[in-house]
Amino acid sequence: MSGERPPAVLIKGCVQAVKTFPISVVITGEETLIQNELKKHKYPEERILILPSHDVIGMDDVPSKAFRQKKDASLMVGCRALKGEMIDAFITPGNTGAALAAALFVIGRIKGVKRPALAISIPTRKGYALMLDGGANSDCNARYLRQFALMGSVYYKNMHTLSAPSVGLLNVGEEDKKGSELAQQAYKELQKLPINFIGNIEPNQIFSHKADVIICDGFVGNLVLKNIEGTAKYLVDIIKSEIMQGVLTRVGAFLMSPVFRRLKQELNPARFGAAPLLGVSKPFFIGHGNSSDASIFGAIRTAVKVLDNDFISNITEDIDRWG
Amino acid sequence: MSGERPPAVLIKGCVQAVKTFPISVVITGEETLIQNELKKHKYPEERILILPSHDVIGMDDVPSKAFRQKKDASLMVGCRALKGEMIDAFITPGNTGAALAAALFVIGRIKGVKRPALAISIPTRKGYALMLDGGANSDCNARYLRQFALMGSVYYKNMHTLSAPSVGLLNVGEEDKKGSELAQQAYKELQKLPINFIGNIEPNQIFSHKADVIICDGFVGNLVLKNIEGTAKYLVDIIKSEIMQGVLTRVGAFLMSPVFRRLKQELNPARFGAAPLLGVSKPFFIGHGNSSDASIFGAIRTAVKVLDNDFISNITEDIDRWG
Repeated sequence: MSGERPPAVLIKGCVQAVKTFPISVVITGEETLIQNELKKHKYPEERILILPSHDVIGMDDVPSKAFRQKKDASLMVGCRALKGEMIDAFITPGNTGAALAAALFVIGRIKGVKRPALAISIPTRKGYALMLDGGANSDCNARYLRQFALMGSVYYKNMHTLSAPSVGLLNVGEEDKKGSELAQQAYKELQKLPINFIGNIEPNQIFSHKADVIICDGFVGNLVLKNIEGTAKYLVDIIKSEIMQGVLTRVGAFLMSPVFRRLKQELNPARFGAAPLLGVSKPFFIGHGNSSDASIFGAIRTAVKVLDNDFISNITEDIDRWG
Repeated sequence: MSGERPPAVLIKGCVQAVKTFPISVVITGEETLIQNELKKHKYPEERILILPSHDVIGMDDVPSKAFRQKKDASLMVGCRALKGEMIDAFITPGNTGAALAAALFVIGRIKGVKRPALAISIPTRKGYALMLDGGANSDCNARYLRQFALMGSVYYKNMHTLSAPSVGLLNVGEEDKKGSELAQQAYKELQKLPINFIGNIEPNQIFSHKADVIICDGFVGNLVLKNIEGTAKYLVDIIKSEIMQGVLTRVGAFLMSPVFRRLKQELNPARFGAAPLLGVSKPFFIGHGNSSDASIFGAIRTAVKVLDNDFISNITEDIDRWG
């Protein structure tokens, strides 16, 4: 029910998923509305269930308040279903702050985890890099970053059947003495871990895929993600407005349209579906408020993949030994 | 002598400047080399002086070490000339760390200034925004950010003959309770100042020019600047490689070449010449290591402009009253 797009869009992604994967999907929300939407599709009917909810936490709701007051919102009903093990994984394209609160207070953390982190996928020249924390924790210490590195490494390993993903620390320079005090302390912590730590990575090295996993605090991570989005949009806007200046450039743009289609696809956040909140005791994914049917489908695909590899047990083990 | 490009390039920018502005330029460096370069140009000869130096701090020198050991480097000779008031402003396209050390320890701060900040220009839809700190101070407190806001506001005012430039605090959301503890404290500090504080600005609002002046700590500022550079480069690379995939797209790209030229121009850091280090007691500018003749010319143009408005006195006054 949450998110910026109508439920119909999200439901379409769920229908696509049950037609593709050997799974069942449970949709929380207003029962009649969902039933009416589902009637428009053909799919194996026993594999989509509706869990009714009677309230919605909107994108503009204040997270802490909504979380306390709207006990019957689709988000809260879904969280209780996850907690009670009716479902194996939960995906929400809604209010990020409320989702974080619900994950922390309804689902709870893996034992030993100080702070769960949002692991965001960024497209690169060689696939994608995973950045965490993408915005769950504005203030972090070196211990948190150490745990982010462990959790990110395990998750990337599970997603890619890769034995030792490279882990980099986001910083303003390559030397270990560069950057903020936090960055310098974190550098020392990351060196001690049984992960493939490759040292600092500068923001202009994200896209060349210097590292599979990029570690930073949630304030910096969120700023960098929003900055990538803003820079890309600005450049595309300049190109568009310049194209309209002349006839030849317009013809040129027409001939180049496959290039622009590819660019748009490359920049589409829906490609990766939703971001896992790592460190929570159950598989919990938070999607973009603007999630499309393709995003929901992508998020379900990701959830299926990591559930197969049981990443929660793997994280639990690593945090217990090294966290 | 410093910087990544040969002195010939930098000298060309100086020649252009004395032909354009009613000023004299003093070049520090290896005397014979500079003399030979200058012979290749026609210009009013009495308006370029050479101040000999016999050492160079390179881009790879460790700043703290080079600063102590290379007393006769072009950077150090230039700083002493500025300190001794032989020159009115100093511009270096060299090693940023060494330049910062020299500025702090040879020139010194304006009375009351806690930390000087690098003020970097970012192109926007409506001209450019000034971001500070762009990387001089990795760890900041709210008091520093308060002073950055005062100094940035004064500088922008002087550059644009604008009465009240808008000042925004870089943050992950618009509400005052968003972001790190530092961001929340700085928000309160900035509200108390006699500046045009417009609240938080998100990274994706930089280019729409929500604020003239953008305040952040040097760690975040440097990361964001490098991230803008990296994102732009990645997009241009995707476009280029996609263009080569087909004959039609190549024809299209040829027709669109004016658009790409404009894009390249837009992204060229040389447009703004060099960044002032605000809070130092004399006009001190640090340029990109890769500065071209156009960057040096641009930096001199900026220096001439702000010297006319005596921005050092204005900053001194504001820091004294409100810092």
